[in-house]
Amino acid sequence: MQRIFEIDPWKVVTHTLDKDNKRLQESMTSIGNEYMGMRGMFEEKYSDDTHKGIYLGGVWFPDKTRVGWWKNGYPAYFGKVINAVDFVSVDIKLNNSSIDLAKDKYSDFELALDMKKGLLTRSYVVEKEDAKVKVTSVRFVSADFKELYANKLSFENLGQKAVKVEVDSFIDANVFNEDANYDEHFWEVHATSNTKQGSKLVSETIKNNFGTPRFTVEMVSDHKGSFESIGAFKDETKTVNSYAKNLEVGEIADFEKRVVVVTSRDYADQTSLDKAAEELSHKQSKLSFEELQEAQANVWAKRWEKADVKIKGNDESQQGIRFNLFQLFSTYYGNDARLNIGPKGFTGEKYGGATYWDTEAFAVPLYLSLAEPSVTRNLLEYRYKQLPGAFHNAKEQGLKGALYPMVTFNGIECHNEWEITFEEIHRNGTIAYAIYNYTRYTGDTEYVTHDGFDVLVGIARFWADRVHFSQRKQVYMIHGVTGPNEYENNVNNNWYTNLLAQWCLRYAKEVSSQVSPEKLSQLGLESKELAKWEEIADNMYLPEDKELGIFVQHDGFLDKDLRPVSEIPADQLPLNQNWSWDHILRSPYIKQADVLQGIYYFIDKFTKEEKARNFDFYEQYTVHESSLSPSIYAIVAADLHKEEKAFELYSRTARLDLDNYNNDTVDGLHVTSMTGSWLAIVQGFAGMRVKDGKLFFAPFVPKQWDGYEFRINFRGRLLEVKASKDVSQVSLLEGPALTINLNGKDLELK
Amino acid sequence: MQRIFEIDPWKVVTHTLDKDNKRLQESMTSIGNEYMGMRGMFEEKYSDDTHKGIYLGGVWFPDKTRVGWWKNGYPAYFGKVINAVDFVSVDIKLNNSSIDLAKDKYSDFELALDMKKGLLTRSYVVEKEDAKVKVTSVRFVSADFKELYANKLSFENLGQKAVKVEVDSFIDANVFNEDANYDEHFWEVHATSNTKQGSKLVSETIKNNFGTPRFTVEMVSDHKGSFESIGAFKDETKTVNSYAKNLEVGEIADFEKRVVVVTSRDYADQTSLDKAAEELSHKQSKLSFEELQEAQANVWAKRWEKADVKIKGNDESQQGIRFNLFQLFSTYYGNDARLNIGPKGFTGEKYGGATYWDTEAFAVPLYLSLAEPSVTRNLLEYRYKQLPGAFHNAKEQGLKGALYPMVTFNGIECHNEWEITFEEIHRNGTIAYAIYNYTRYTGDTEYVTHDGFDVLVGIARFWADRVHFSQRKQVYMIHGVTGPNEYENNVNNNWYTNLLAQWCLRYAKEVSSQVSPEKLSQLGLESKELAKWEEIADNMYLPEDKELGIFVQHDGFLDKDLRPVSEIPADQLPLNQNWSWDHILRSPYIKQADVLQGIYYFIDKFTKEEKARNFDFYEQYTVHESSLSPSIYAIVAADLHKEEKAFELYSRTARLDLDNYNNDTVDGLHVTSMTGSWLAIVQGFAGMRVKDGKLFFAPFVPKQWDGYEFRINFRGRLLEVKASKDVSQVSLLEGPALTINLNGKDLELK
Repeated sequence: MQRIFEIDPWKVVTHTLDKDNKRLQESMTSIGNEYMGMRGMFEEKYSDDTHKGIYLGGVWFPDKTRVGWWKNGYPAYFGKVINAVDFVSVDIKLNNSSIDLAKDKYSDFELALDMKKGLLTRSYVVEKEDAKVKVTSVRFVSADFKELYANKLSFENLGQKAVKVEVDSFIDANVFNEDANYDEHFWEVHATSNTKQGSKLVSETIKNNFGTPRFTVEMVSDHKGSFESIGAFKDETKTVNSYAKNLEVGEIADFEKRVVVVTSRDYADQTSLDKAAEELSHKQSKLSFEELQEAQANVWAKRWEKADVKIKGNDESQQGIRFNLFQLFSTYYGNDARLNIGPKGFTGEKYGGATYWDTEAFAVPLYLSLAEPSVTRNLLEYRYKQLPGAFHNAKEQGLKGALYPMVTFNGIECHNEWEITFEEIHRNGTIAYAIYNYTRYTGDTEYVTHDGFDVLVGIARFWADRVHFSQRKQVYMIHGVTGPNEYENNVNNNWYTNLLAQWCLRYAKEVSSQVSPEKLSQLGLESKELAKWEEIADNMYLPEDKELGIFVQHDGFLDKDLRPVSEIPADQLPLNQNWSWDHILRSPYIKQADVLQGIYYFIDKFTKEEKARNFDFYEQYTVHESSLSPSIYAIVAADLHKEEKAFELYSRTARLDLDNYNNDTVDGLHVTSMTGSWLAIVQGFAGMRVKDGKLFFAPFVPKQWDGYEFRINFRGRLLEVKASKDVSQVSLLEGPALTINLNGKDLELK
Repeated sequence: MQRIFEIDPWKVVTHTLDKDNKRLQESMTSIGNEYMGMRGMFEEKYSDDTHKGIYLGGVWFPDKTRVGWWKNGYPAYFGKVINAVDFVSVDIKLNNSSIDLAKDKYSDFELALDMKKGLLTRSYVVEKEDAKVKVTSVRFVSADFKELYANKLSFENLGQKAVKVEVDSFIDANVFNEDANYDEHFWEVHATSNTKQGSKLVSETIKNNFGTPRFTVEMVSDHKGSFESIGAFKDETKTVNSYAKNLEVGEIADFEKRVVVVTSRDYADQTSLDKAAEELSHKQSKLSFEELQEAQANVWAKRWEKADVKIKGNDESQQGIRFNLFQLFSTYYGNDARLNIGPKGFTGEKYGGATYWDTEAFAVPLYLSLAEPSVTRNLLEYRYKQLPGAFHNAKEQGLKGALYPMVTFNGIECHNEWEITFEEIHRNGTIAYAIYNYTRYTGDTEYVTHDGFDVLVGIARFWADRVHFSQRKQVYMIHGVTGPNEYENNVNNNWYTNLLAQWCLRYAKEVSSQVSPEKLSQLGLESKELAKWEEIADNMYLPEDKELGIFVQHDGFLDKDLRPVSEIPADQLPLNQNWSWDHILRSPYIKQADVLQGIYYFIDKFTKEEKARNFDFYEQYTVHESSLSPSIYAIVAADLHKEEKAFELYSRTARLDLDNYNNDTVDGLHVTSMTGSWLAIVQGFAGMRVKDGKLFFAPFVPKQWDGYEFRINFRGRLLEVKASKDVSQVSLLEGPALTINLNGKDLELK
């Protein structure tokens, strides 16, 4: 654990410029509006270690696959959201010398992410070239005006002499991805132009050999404030606008940089891009920074109104949950059906921006409760639209049906580790589970019986072909898989995978009875095939150990040298940073919920004893080195009334990034895992369930807290749940009357 | 199968320049003298597809590891024998126009590898620029004068006019490896010089960051014949000597290029390199091409005298076995203890020149019989010298003892696929087995009780740490391995691996009773540790299936969808070129002898019934997509008197490259597999065994043959075995009297 920000209920704030952890500070002060986003790097020059990262949602590049040893079936490219043309950087000169906090003398440093208003603010007093100036920066990407980036720089002369302050404002296409496979630069510039007021730069992603779309991006900058234009400049890769101001002793002056960013994702051709850029520039020019800032604050206020979780008596937890919701909403708020939720959102390169099963497994349940149903529906439609890619992936492996990818932008698998790409196929089950989850929560059966059914059938057909019948054991098996626990590869009969395959086949068959005959014939689905699915499901092998009374993670797991995590010397943790891969694979240690993931998905289908025995058995071997793990364990622990354990596990997810728990937040935030703390509170501590269309709650308050409150959407209502030490209550804030169940008693809410 | 050369008992010859299979022709016409070697590319210009490959034994470069996803424990570099500075190329001009058979009109083409004399000859008649000239080339690297490359070009004017013939002779450092990870050129040139007579070029391998040695190579060319020097030239990367001759109608003229190659492997500094180059140049200059050629033929005659296998009534088989022995001896003849046997020798890049377990498993048994004991002893000492590297490899995985590498030049593991590097650890067993094999065959116990014992103890300590005790099953297990059958990865309890581990522990303990107390204490080996080894060996889990009466390849193998290879449509073979890796892994198909490899190693320890049941069971699932597989199956089949089957399997290895059986000879020859056909004949058809120091034979003659003869060294004797349809005999050609066993009867040979 490493805590470099102060505890504050609404802010992520520090008064230290931590040069050794600059990248970590940048990750944690990232901002975004789902259309675009960026890390918390400085606008002005910083010559020491820093990671400039600016990203545009859905603007990606297929980077040619790079492997040591090719395996048949590997994808041709790995898609990545590339570092956008840099529209943030400025160079600030005091008396002709650039501010560079890596070298300059400074004081009164403050860096603060205001989660309530959606602003990143920074200020410091710098002394150089016998000038002493207080610099303040406020920046945001507007949730109210998605194409707009705004940055206000204020300068106060605290010295004894007048100071010449100059600002060079850039749009610079000379950027690169640290994770580029072949050190390519991904942007080529098509046009640049300057005026005294600002500049324009039009760039396009370079050609690729894979037939995936190229993206054109147009950026138009505008500058406001009391500075005076002293020139404009452009070359092949960038534009520069220079401004200056003579700052008298005691004087305060503002400089504003605004950039409108439009892309070919939204506009058909260059003409309409130009037109849009012009109109949006005009629109923003009419608005003051204060007006823009207020609009931004209003959007965030509305979001918090619906989604805020109040935790009483524990500011650390309070800050944690808000930070997680803030970063999650900054990445995705459901306004663009073509987008999904990247595991690192706009906060880093690694896995940046691509779509993983994280969305369906961990984000969908949260968006179901905190956003309109249409938002989750969009996430489901996203997969429907990518069915052709899923068919392609299955075909690449010589299999029928649809295999959803591990990593993708367009449905085509991008990843290239055989043990993941080819084997971590349980992901397919979660795609189907999300459809079930959406239907169960919203009561909307329209999707599952139409587009959603195409997805279910594609997935069922994959499983039906992927299993094999063991003559010897007279059961269906699934060999050669990697479960959610990626510390085991190429195992046979992973219980979780087999369970999901069985469930998918049954669920698809069940739904088939509700769809139209036209749909069935359109999919060529006949009773013979349905019967085969049932036969496979009924004879699916699900490894169990009668003696221990547990489900067995996979064949052979119990043959291992089973020592609990508690016996591992502390200095060998985390294992993935201290052990060889070989050592990890042979060990019994579990990276992330595996059997427990299955129990979580179908938590009401197992007896208390089954849940308790499996939890107690697997928890002792679980190292939670995936950020997606502790929340699931926390929910099952809460279900078993292990309140202490539930809180302990919740704590590992609550401040995962704020406390750099896994020592890798430097690469970016674990955005999709940020749902974990919310799930642990709502599905865990408050025990929220949906059964047969009815909401259930059984709240308890961890002893570390005095109480908590949260709100959820449910079928046209807005509900508020309040839990305190002695009493818990659920109230209906909006919408028609509703019967829910609280602590085992039905309760009608009006 | 693809046969592009004619059948001839002593030659590999074709009268077609097969432009579509040029690389294949080049692979099969490779020559070498273990000090250096080269593919059969033309000396003169050829502008179509060709692969120029010239290699110097032991001159390698550590190429920085390239992977898609790093795994803890991966090695930093992959060693490769790099393409040497090109000393072979010439440019031949007729009336100022370069000969280029890719474009020119030609006739009477012949390309022939003379295996009896160790020469590569080529001739053709070319017509261009109203010249008609017959060109003949003879080249070899001398087995009698290892540093010398000699090439004689003869020109006969068959036209109606005089022709101006020019030859530009190069030494060119501007070469590259097609398999370079980062497209680096590996040579930097330090010095070049010319005279009319020839040139000198001194080059060194580029710097590396891994502390492995750099190699300096000095090449000195000399030119003879009736041509006249018309100039010499040099630049930063090459030297050129130009010669010309006016060839009258009907006239014949010769041009000779000779190059002396010396390296820093043999000389301490530049001064001694220069001196050696000078002396060797002087030495060769005194010898005529005919004298050199004769010396070369004499060395090969001696080799054939000892090693030739005569097959009666089948020229295809005759050519096959000679080709295999020729290429094997061209790669390694035991003259340099620092060298080993690269799977592709000097014939290609892939795996080129590095050391694999192939040496101990497949080459040692042949060299034991066909070379002096010292040759095999050198191969064993090679591993002893690399013990520090083996300790390093085990430590990288967090394990005790010695883990010999999958791929290496210096003992340090080079390979970087986790399922191979970390898991294909059975290789360690074969390193120990080779010591046992050497001791058993030669009767020399000196090695095994001294240096060899250090190796055995290092290996035993590795196994003792690598196993784990399964509380549940109360046995020792080995999880997470890849057996010889690389179509299964990360399996548990591979029978072959567990068997070898058990055997290693017992053998090391057994030998410990014969070594000196000093040795024991020097290795810190005490009775407690020996007892532990015994306890592990006695409780090692060896999967068996009582019902089928077979050893089980690994846990879960029998749960697979077990359909024989015969059910796979022909157009899907070979699997590795037609199936996804995922499909291959889940299938029951076996790439190479696995359980059968264990049965082969200890063939007299199993009952006939055990051997028969396992052979019959596994053979039906084996695709033999490794060239190392069929010979082992052939030997076990022969042992079981399945003569038809034995011959069928032998046939897959007999002409593996000559008939491009695996469709990959284009990359180079399967040098280490070339022992397979010899093993199949001697250990298979002739049933040679060594038990308690006595030789056993039980020959049969396949019905496709009339008979066969071969010779072997055994403990100071030279024996000849002759088998014909009706009778087989063994005679003593050299050395003291000896009792052997023929067809179950003891026989004293005088």
